[in-house]
Amino acid sequence: MKIKKIGIIGLGHVGEAVIKSLRKYSGLISRRTPLKIVVKKVCDKDKAKRKIAKKLGCSFTSSPQELIDDPQIDIIVELMGGIKPAGDFIQEALKKGKDVVTANKALLATSGKQIFSLAKRKNRSIGFEASVCGAIPLIKSISQGLVSCEVKKIYGILNGTTNYILYKMAKERIDFKQALRQAQDNGLAERSPYLDIEGKDALHKLCILSYLCYGVWPLQNKIYTEGISKISLLDILYAQELNYRIKLLAIAKKEKGVLDLRVQPTLVSMEHPLSHVSLAYNAVYLHTQPAGELLFRGEGAGGVPTSSAVISDIVSIASGKGMAIRDEEKGVIQNIKDARARYYIRFMAQDHPGVLAKISKILSSLNISIASVTQKERNKGRVVPIIMLTHEAREDSVRKALTEIDSLGVIKGPSQRIRIEDL
Amino acid sequence: MKIKKIGIIGLGHVGEAVIKSLRKYSGLISRRTPLKIVVKKVCDKDKAKRKIAKKLGCSFTSSPQELIDDPQIDIIVELMGGIKPAGDFIQEALKKGKDVVTANKALLATSGKQIFSLAKRKNRSIGFEASVCGAIPLIKSISQGLVSCEVKKIYGILNGTTNYILYKMAKERIDFKQALRQAQDNGLAERSPYLDIEGKDALHKLCILSYLCYGVWPLQNKIYTEGISKISLLDILYAQELNYRIKLLAIAKKEKGVLDLRVQPTLVSMEHPLSHVSLAYNAVYLHTQPAGELLFRGEGAGGVPTSSAVISDIVSIASGKGMAIRDEEKGVIQNIKDARARYYIRFMAQDHPGVLAKISKILSSLNISIASVTQKERNKGRVVPIIMLTHEAREDSVRKALTEIDSLGVIKGPSQRIRIEDL
Repeated sequence: MKIKKIGIIGLGHVGEAVIKSLRKYSGLISRRTPLKIVVKKVCDKDKAKRKIAKKLGCSFTSSPQELIDDPQIDIIVELMGGIKPAGDFIQEALKKGKDVVTANKALLATSGKQIFSLAKRKNRSIGFEASVCGAIPLIKSISQGLVSCEVKKIYGILNGTTNYILYKMAKERIDFKQALRQAQDNGLAERSPYLDIEGKDALHKLCILSYLCYGVWPLQNKIYTEGISKISLLDILYAQELNYRIKLLAIAKKEKGVLDLRVQPTLVSMEHPLSHVSLAYNAVYLHTQPAGELLFRGEGAGGVPTSSAVISDIVSIASGKGMAIRDEEKGVIQNIKDARARYYIRFMAQDHPGVLAKISKILSSLNISIASVTQKERNKGRVVPIIMLTHEAREDSVRKALTEIDSLGVIKGPSQRIRIEDL
Repeated sequence: MKIKKIGIIGLGHVGEAVIKSLRKYSGLISRRTPLKIVVKKVCDKDKAKRKIAKKLGCSFTSSPQELIDDPQIDIIVELMGGIKPAGDFIQEALKKGKDVVTANKALLATSGKQIFSLAKRKNRSIGFEASVCGAIPLIKSISQGLVSCEVKKIYGILNGTTNYILYKMAKERIDFKQALRQAQDNGLAERSPYLDIEGKDALHKLCILSYLCYGVWPLQNKIYTEGISKISLLDILYAQELNYRIKLLAIAKKEKGVLDLRVQPTLVSMEHPLSHVSLAYNAVYLHTQPAGELLFRGEGAGGVPTSSAVISDIVSIASGKGMAIRDEEKGVIQNIKDARARYYIRFMAQDHPGVLAKISKILSSLNISIASVTQKERNKGRVVPIIMLTHEAREDSVRKALTEIDSLGVIKGPSQRIRIEDL
């Protein structure tokens, strides 16, 4: 039985769960892989964590450098989060010839390019299973299980918080703020929930998937990212009547060498399995060749589930089966203005004769063709919602049309537009 | 770049697709893994296949021994199917120091015990990703991605043919025979569909999952296996009214050291993602610790999708990352008579006063408690269906009760009982 020693930087929920799971399931692990993983030392900048480490039977330090310099430690497990100084620690560990496991999506989305190329030069492994979709073994599935597959399209519910909020809004007919509060009360959303609800967390994960599937580390600011804070209960209910659910999707498509990457609220047909992903679950739907369409679904966060992904990386690397690091490739990222989609559009219009004619005229002048129209209520002279579904149209044209339409006197308040994806 | 040479035994749909995919995606594979896979020779007992081999640019033989004896071949890929002589070829290849990749579920379910222990003794790898759920990277996910996880429960739609039939029956309101014919017409069911519709194919895959998750190779005849040929449209529609769908599930649960393994038609709540698995898709729902609940869904069959799984095994093994072979463990398999479940029961009873009292009396005498009763139609003196859902009851008691009830004069035709699983 081979013994491998690890050092853990960051003793939060995940770190603690990793240590506990390593102990609890050590028999199981060694039955599957002739290997013993020993936690040599844990580190946290918060010295009060020494107590927790002691309870867990682990040697403690508040200096990451101590772990990095320890010649007995084979693998550094970075679970502290944040970009600085986590990235420096990882790079130093690689330079010292150590392999690295990390759950740090923000860091990889920002500095993955440098970190992976350094690891490649140093002939080291990086495990990052926990950085996307928590407990779902997605990274290994794509890199190993689907090693011969072109990933044509990725549709991911990569953020549990926003999925929970949208699910609760629909299920309990409550508005965004109420649902957000529920998520916060249940520990599913942070007190400052910006990263989640504005789609940034999903964006980080999408960047990692872009590297994994296409070899391309995109610049985050080149990726269209729209969160869910402007999704109203009204739109959720209207979408439902049209047999759609609204989900925050991270999307990647590769066509003719161009990468279409976005994070956006999306109308997903109720016939599609992604529409049924409830609560805070994560899920990824892949269109591949030759493996066809695949769905993965599971817990996207939480210390205990995530510990499974971290340990799977530790075991893979410790048994010499870490992922080979692919070379970076050049990629052209599509500008959102050039993207094409079908649209759900809601106008708030005065119930006057001729309103529809005015809207239609503008749409048609920009080559946007209407697939269906529903006026939700009749209420002469008052403001009523008009729901339109369009055929495929260019984003740029839709933006222009909406600016023009919203400036009409009969239109009250900004129009809502949500893209539809035919998954 | 490392070159690895393989020999393929069996040039059917999967074999052909493997050769084509290896060529088509060779660039992709080598970008992910510094490796070149060369098909040294293919073999089929049908000499007419020489033509196909030629078209594919492959050297051909009709003698498997030639591949096994070839010192240049590192990996034997067995895609011929059947138990004899495939098992002999695999064992000989292992004895000659070759690694093996196989998609042969019937063989592994029957002889996995000997094959894996031989491979372990010879320090060889066996890749069997394609043997369960076709293109879904389930085997690697469980053995590597979930390496630290106890798999508490497995619920699998492991057979596409039966899922297609049940799906079509519900969707188009047709009976079993019509749906079977559709499946046959679409190439989704064999002309002699026994292995699929009676649950044997799912049973084979369940045996493999039992080894993978619990280290136990069960005897097939110890596993309760019930197919779908007795499922009527009536039951599908009644189940639907009660918010359930009927799915053929392969089930494994481990509790207190006892393994509960079965293949059975099952009522699955429409709230559960497995109920939405449509057409011929396969899916597996796992309850694990610490990774929580996970769903995998994808193409379960077909040459092209399955080639992805075969190639992933070839690449893993060729790059020295094949799965470590776990030791066999002893397992106690639960007798179905001792199993407990909730039940859907349909009686065909004469519409007479007192019928329900008679049925209830028998059920209660055997400690079976009724959760709900629906009499579908009123038709005095004629035969009408009565639908009951029970609380959890012992299989043995339910069988006794139904035998007794079916012998009542007011009951016409045998009763139907389908287990409900609260996934």
